[in-house]
Amino acid sequence: MSGRLDELKRRMARLSDLKYASSLANWDQQTKMPPRGAACRADVLATLAELRHREFTDSETGRLLDAAAGELRGADPDSDEVRLVESVRRHWEKARRVPGDLTAEIARAGSRGQEVWIDARAQSDFAMFQPVLQHNVDLARRYVECHLGHDGFQCAYDVLLDDYEPLMRTAQVAALFDELKRELLPLIDAVTNSAGVDATPVEARFPVEGQRALSREVVELMGFDARGWRLDDTVHPFATGVGDGDVRITTRYDERYWPMSLFGSMHECGHGLYEEGAALAHPRSPLGAVDSLAMHESQSRLWENMVGRGRSFANVLAPRAAAHCGGPLEGLEPEALFRAVNRVRPSFIRVEADEATYALHIILRFELEQELIEGTLRVADAAEAWRARFRQYVGLDVTDDADGILQDVHWSAGLMGYFSTYALGNLIAGQLWERAHRDLPDLEDALAAGELGGLREWLREHVHRHGAKFPTAELLQRELQAPISVAPFVRYLKDKLGDVYGLSL
Amino acid sequence: MSGRLDELKRRMARLSDLKYASSLANWDQQTKMPPRGAACRADVLATLAELRHREFTDSETGRLLDAAAGELRGADPDSDEVRLVESVRRHWEKARRVPGDLTAEIARAGSRGQEVWIDARAQSDFAMFQPVLQHNVDLARRYVECHLGHDGFQCAYDVLLDDYEPLMRTAQVAALFDELKRELLPLIDAVTNSAGVDATPVEARFPVEGQRALSREVVELMGFDARGWRLDDTVHPFATGVGDGDVRITTRYDERYWPMSLFGSMHECGHGLYEEGAALAHPRSPLGAVDSLAMHESQSRLWENMVGRGRSFANVLAPRAAAHCGGPLEGLEPEALFRAVNRVRPSFIRVEADEATYALHIILRFELEQELIEGTLRVADAAEAWRARFRQYVGLDVTDDADGILQDVHWSAGLMGYFSTYALGNLIAGQLWERAHRDLPDLEDALAAGELGGLREWLREHVHRHGAKFPTAELLQRELQAPISVAPFVRYLKDKLGDVYGLSL
Repeated sequence: MSGRLDELKRRMARLSDLKYASSLANWDQQTKMPPRGAACRADVLATLAELRHREFTDSETGRLLDAAAGELRGADPDSDEVRLVESVRRHWEKARRVPGDLTAEIARAGSRGQEVWIDARAQSDFAMFQPVLQHNVDLARRYVECHLGHDGFQCAYDVLLDDYEPLMRTAQVAALFDELKRELLPLIDAVTNSAGVDATPVEARFPVEGQRALSREVVELMGFDARGWRLDDTVHPFATGVGDGDVRITTRYDERYWPMSLFGSMHECGHGLYEEGAALAHPRSPLGAVDSLAMHESQSRLWENMVGRGRSFANVLAPRAAAHCGGPLEGLEPEALFRAVNRVRPSFIRVEADEATYALHIILRFELEQELIEGTLRVADAAEAWRARFRQYVGLDVTDDADGILQDVHWSAGLMGYFSTYALGNLIAGQLWERAHRDLPDLEDALAAGELGGLREWLREHVHRHGAKFPTAELLQRELQAPISVAPFVRYLKDKLGDVYGLSL
Repeated sequence: MSGRLDELKRRMARLSDLKYASSLANWDQQTKMPPRGAACRADVLATLAELRHREFTDSETGRLLDAAAGELRGADPDSDEVRLVESVRRHWEKARRVPGDLTAEIARAGSRGQEVWIDARAQSDFAMFQPVLQHNVDLARRYVECHLGHDGFQCAYDVLLDDYEPLMRTAQVAALFDELKRELLPLIDAVTNSAGVDATPVEARFPVEGQRALSREVVELMGFDARGWRLDDTVHPFATGVGDGDVRITTRYDERYWPMSLFGSMHECGHGLYEEGAALAHPRSPLGAVDSLAMHESQSRLWENMVGRGRSFANVLAPRAAAHCGGPLEGLEPEALFRAVNRVRPSFIRVEADEATYALHIILRFELEQELIEGTLRVADAAEAWRARFRQYVGLDVTDDADGILQDVHWSAGLMGYFSTYALGNLIAGQLWERAHRDLPDLEDALAAGELGGLREWLREHVHRHGAKFPTAELLQRELQAPISVAPFVRYLKDKLGDVYGLSL
């Protein structure tokens, strides 16, 4: 009865294998590959992408989808099988609109672009990066053109956003961001005009080897297990599954700013737990590969900020940081650490931004990307536009493009349309955090004791195990009985910053 | 004029990309992968192998071969293009005889088998390994059946050997091995009955970190360059290109037997130089992937034994080993090191065997493999057969299968027919070594000064740059005006052991 469905699953399993081969090649490029491997690696990634695209978009996939749907007539519409067929069909229809050589070129340009970006960023030279950005914008436009007029896309940016947050539309994001900005700006004003907090603890010089040990200890509390995980060094931190049950996370170390490695590791471990949970619940299946980056980011940000920078977990972090750092952090008080790591201060680098100003970094990118894609902003003017917008939103003058437009890997890798999912992830994290506290009344006591398993299992149950089975809106409706919303995140943030700054917000 | 030839080259370039993706996945499995990644990695490797097989054996490849041959009519028969078409056609015809699912299953079984082997070897438990060996023997037989009656194969083993040493036949190897055994046995008798050598220097306890530094220094003298190479730890050392200009070599360390890591590193670096030279001369081409493992092994053994264990290079090694080891090797004399690392003594482990007894380890495997494939030896009896044959040839009683049949990774990975190329490599190394001395009169002085570039460039010119362009017999004829032969290796060995043991051999 399910012969063609099984065949579809096998076909998808092979595509999952190819995706893992690409993920591994990309992980290796960023962590282990000697520099002379770069040119050839770009070809390898392009060929894998092209083959995967060709295999997936083959008309045989369509025939199997039709036949499998027939076999599933009358089946539970919420079963894994029915959802698999629906999800594959939607992706298949989108992918078929893109020629194979464009797919290969996007992969190749992304791999080569990252190599150029590393040098351009090191030399803070936008001119060096400009041809890469131009090429990637051109490719993104060609990609958009394949899809306009389909799937109810209302604008060019909808096409790109849909790749990172399926079924989400630009207008909805813009509305959420408007509301978020209205809430955040007065909050930022209030705290930056207050007495401020003592940042001494985060300014302590902390040797890299000690940071490495601290990061490792903390991710192990979260669920990192050397039998299935690796933690490596990289320029731009990331998390990726390179196999079902094989999770790779990376972080970077700065002796003069130790919270970066610690919270970066927690962030990536949050992603990793999601990758692991989804893949093990749906092995070698497209449902095991999370396709909502907003959901993905909700996991990383929840662990990084709500747990990691939370009042309770400071009781775990403070003594461990003191022990691994030695002198400068001796006798560090949890309360002092809690306040220091939650200082709100406009700053240049997105990944180091506090939780209140973070969204401003995202909104800037969200707007610039739309303008680049629509052609209302020329690539040659992008660095200047960045500086102007940054001054307007964050209030700082970018004097060095390495701290401005060159700070993120995304545009070098051809990832246009991706950034907004970071801020959407914060919103969802706020919603999950509120519900987790309702379901787990002793949660804060557990966090203060370093017992993170309860929260992890709650997330496994309500988020991870679903993998890519439900679109975000439906997942939130099923698990939280609510659409994506701004209020819980803002409540969380006011509560925390009120505590940090001794203000009533 | 060359449209179809170019298309053939592009097709082959994509296959080269897929091969590199597999090489990377295999490298990662043996050096970086957490253990829980193993099951999924086997699927990834199987899918890559299956896709590569399908792409390669597609009838479109045949059409392009025909058309390219037409375009090349009248071209220089020794040109890269003509040789490319000839070589691809031969491999294409062989590969087309193998069903895709068998190819995938061989890859999957090889990947899974290695994981079982690691445990079985650690526990010295042949029973644990037996099902893996049985499955791999069964697969090898199915593979053989695809090919019998083609390409002039005279016996089952010819089919397997041809995969590792193209166009070489079992009967020719057997004749060479008979001659080699006749020469070696009296030589071994003579030296093992002599006064012996002082092995103290190789028995010194040498901390792993010092060995690591020594290995790194020595491979850098050979041409290892961090811009294009990596050296990592592994259970079973190997070398692999994972991209044109991206070479990965591995070694293992034993505090109680330091020559293993040093000479292992030199061995793998010898392979790596060949991989690098061939790939850079023929980027993204099948001609850049050396398909003669005897030629490959000639490079590794030449660097490991003729250079590394040679009288001249001992002048370089002795002071460096003393410096990195500290106390136990203080004041180590080059002459003492030279004698110690060339001690002839029957031993259990092939990769630690001296140059005189090494071939006996190979001949044993060469015979057992033939018997397993022909079915005259049952897999269940293989460990016992190993012990009996080992007693007969080497004169030692294997009491522990970890030191017997479980010592090598090959059979776990499905690599049947491979071993003889190791001993053939020694013979070719002997021929190259003799010719290099004729062409480079100051070679020994250079080696004594640690200047290895002259020899490396000589090998680049006479061996590496050809890649897979010529079959071994033709390459040797072109470069040495001789067929593969036993005499130069034996001359080299008598000369060296006469020096070590103070005998006239």
